[in-house]
Amino acid sequence: MTEQKNREIRLVRRPEGLPRPADFELVETPVPAPGPGQILVRNIYMSVDPYMRGRMMDRKSYVPPFQIGETLSGGAVGQVVEANGHPAFRKGDYVSNMEGWREWFVSKGAMMQKIDPEAAPIQAYLGTFGMPGLTAYAGLLRVAKLKEGDRVFVSAASGAVGSIVCQIAKNKGCTVVGSAGSDDKCDWLRTQARVDEAINYKTCGDLTAAVRKTMPEGIDVYFENVGGAHLEAALANMRPFGRIAVCGLIEQYNATALPAGPRNFVSIIGLRLTVTGFIVSDHFDMQQDFLRDMAAWKKDGKLTWHETVVDGIEHAPEAFIGLFKGANFGKMLVKIGPDSAV
Amino acid sequence: MTEQKNREIRLVRRPEGLPRPADFELVETPVPAPGPGQILVRNIYMSVDPYMRGRMMDRKSYVPPFQIGETLSGGAVGQVVEANGHPAFRKGDYVSNMEGWREWFVSKGAMMQKIDPEAAPIQAYLGTFGMPGLTAYAGLLRVAKLKEGDRVFVSAASGAVGSIVCQIAKNKGCTVVGSAGSDDKCDWLRTQARVDEAINYKTCGDLTAAVRKTMPEGIDVYFENVGGAHLEAALANMRPFGRIAVCGLIEQYNATALPAGPRNFVSIIGLRLTVTGFIVSDHFDMQQDFLRDMAAWKKDGKLTWHETVVDGIEHAPEAFIGLFKGANFGKMLVKIGPDSAV
Repeated sequence: MTEQKNREIRLVRRPEGLPRPADFELVETPVPAPGPGQILVRNIYMSVDPYMRGRMMDRKSYVPPFQIGETLSGGAVGQVVEANGHPAFRKGDYVSNMEGWREWFVSKGAMMQKIDPEAAPIQAYLGTFGMPGLTAYAGLLRVAKLKEGDRVFVSAASGAVGSIVCQIAKNKGCTVVGSAGSDDKCDWLRTQARVDEAINYKTCGDLTAAVRKTMPEGIDVYFENVGGAHLEAALANMRPFGRIAVCGLIEQYNATALPAGPRNFVSIIGLRLTVTGFIVSDHFDMQQDFLRDMAAWKKDGKLTWHETVVDGIEHAPEAFIGLFKGANFGKMLVKIGPDSAV
Repeated sequence: MTEQKNREIRLVRRPEGLPRPADFELVETPVPAPGPGQILVRNIYMSVDPYMRGRMMDRKSYVPPFQIGETLSGGAVGQVVEANGHPAFRKGDYVSNMEGWREWFVSKGAMMQKIDPEAAPIQAYLGTFGMPGLTAYAGLLRVAKLKEGDRVFVSAASGAVGSIVCQIAKNKGCTVVGSAGSDDKCDWLRTQARVDEAINYKTCGDLTAAVRKTMPEGIDVYFENVGGAHLEAALANMRPFGRIAVCGLIEQYNATALPAGPRNFVSIIGLRLTVTGFIVSDHFDMQQDFLRDMAAWKKDGKLTWHETVVDGIEHAPEAFIGLFKGANFGKMLVKIGPDSAV
């Protein structure tokens, strides 16, 4: 153990536009020793998420910005290697935590939950059974007020959130069309996620026309992850009293100038649309219902997912950058430690 | 009576951009004779409203388009001159109707309501006590879910709808800032409509900064009548969980190309905003509550309004065109008949 080094990723400078590997640095530090009442955790998987791009900007937002020279943070799952008299955690426990972008850390256990490796693979607690899954669940059921029979359009439909949105909507008796950026992703959406239609937005030509063709009766609920042409295509195809849940606008997260807004925003009046932005942390009260429903759907064979796993913390910046290029198919994860450390 | 001619306004061609007088024509026709069970009405005031611009385009919308060569229609108030055995209306009754843009008409009485000239001046049934007033009431109380203490920003605040929005919000215990296009309008807003601050958007410089200065704690409710820079200024100043009721986007109704959408639309996520478009006809169930509250506020000296009256149906096109130039101060009306015709 004393020979073991910790590695972690720090922000060297604030990215301009699409982040580059040189915006990050890998630093070696000693593995810290847990003080009394602390636990030592070795992370196994860490998450990279689009929202982290916002934290790399120096601006007021719902989460404070990352600081230059400091280690990044984010969702991770790991295992307790030492529990120095901690009342709640024991050696061997698997835990989800917000101490990603580093291999080892000590903690008093705040913001950490034990996870059950029998219920789902531990990395699923960073995806389908974790924050992205709850984002899909809350966004669809509470924010967009999904009803049985709704016609649902989902952008970034093969992503960590979108792929779960598609399946929850199908499980709730809806018609679902998803858009994704490759034929492979579209095939998976049709055959595995059970969507009614999938649109490859890179090859379909005019997206508004493609949506109209696949959803001739229009859209009741649009789950927005992308922005830009997707938002305009959705607005052009919404049904009266339609609802748009705005989860993300990944297309513009690296914009260096103010991006264009939806030119057909005026549709909101005549169609009496409701457009609602949301962030998952306002909906943690749904966690129990979420886990119960997800477990039931999984048991019934009505929930599947795809992961893209990059190996080694040294490749975490590339994995993160890949999110903005569609390099992920489902949840993007970085494997940063052995399956078991004890 | 037989000598009397009816005059009406027809659409000659679909306007491109800002409508021009030559897009309309004044036509003389005989005054029609009421058949059995019909009434003959002489209109006294007609309304011109921004929404009519949308009906001049040939497109699918919530109201069908006006047809070339046909007489336009819209809200009006008039008096029953003959009631040929009609069971509900009598000679002398004042009525609101949807047969504007013409001086005389016959009807079976559908879509018409008797109005009480003692409760309010008859033309107020086209403004404060009519569709614009109900638009303000429903948009603020139901769509934007106004709560006591909310900080409310209103664009086109001295208009037919906006001026009522400001006063309802004040009457409900809110802080109100309105924007208008002249110092006169701003003075009226402060002294008569009792807003806390008024912004002359034509002279204030950067509108986002002007809103920030007058509402340093931000906006809970934005009542949107304008679009463009107003929408961006509001989005830049919204408080978390703020609500935007989109009533109109008058700035772009004459656009000949797709207008720019709000470039800071992304704020909707971090601030968890809800943006809802609405049209008044979905809220006619609030009519009774609306009239009750408005009458009470008027009685208590907590409701005032301003009108701009253009004289003569031959000037109705100019009055309509003036809406898009801010020529109206409060409700824009056209006087098209004598105060009493019987």
